Amino acid sequence: MDEAKGVVKHIFVAKFKDGTTPNQIDHLIREMANLVNLIEPLKSFHWGKDVSAGNKNQGFTHVLESTFESMEGVAEYIAHPAHVEYAKVLLLHVEKYMVIDYKPATLNFGLEG
Amino acid sequence: MDEAKGVVKHIFVAKFKDGTTPNQIDHLIREMANLVNLIEPLKSFHWGKDVSAGNKNQGFTHVLESTFESMEGVAEYIAHPAHVEYAKVLLLHVEKYMVIDYKPATLNFGLEG
Repeated sequence: MDEAKGVVKHIFVAKFKDGTTPNQIDHLIREMANLVNLIEPLKSFHWGKDVSAGNKNQGFTHVLESTFESMEGVAEYIAHPAHVEYAKVLLLHVEKYMVIDYKPATLNFGLEG
Repeated sequence: MDEAKGVVKHIFVAKFKDGTTPNQIDHLIREMANLVNLIEPLKSFHWGKDVSAGNKNQGFTHVLESTFESMEGVAEYIAHPAHVEYAKVLLLHVEKYMVIDYKPATLNFGLEG
């Protein structure tokens, strides 16, 4: 099973507190996006609101998706002072969250027969 | 905030039942990957085991990540008989799961000043 170039996706799924305003969320996401400029192993950042149908989101409202080239990169990011400082502020506004890291792999049926 | 070409990520995060063997999980993931060949709006599929440090994964073990071009595509996929049949089998092996759909957006600081 092909692991695309060792890329690691670091997925932070959050439910913001009811009192957190859209402006505050917007600001927090901009601050997160700016970490790409400050933390070398953080290669890219994407985010989105949950838009799923079916009520299987367990109450989570936002995905913050960071891409790294290795698990070492993730560890360096987690420990980086700019991230530590950011996370402290972010978590003040978060009611609950979960973190999943995974190496996105595909299956190549054409190659495997 | 730039939403990359209207792409929708459909993220299924699962904890498999303790009794489910690695071979069964492998088979389930291959069957899921094969849906790309059967369901037109399902554009690509990636998966990965959780490899996060820090115990914030809430017990989830696997991510199944599907990519669509629209929310209509997601709805068509959900209702497609091949998916309905697959989901029935998958959920037999799943202790808990969550589903998040989001449109991955970036921030362009260069453009926004």
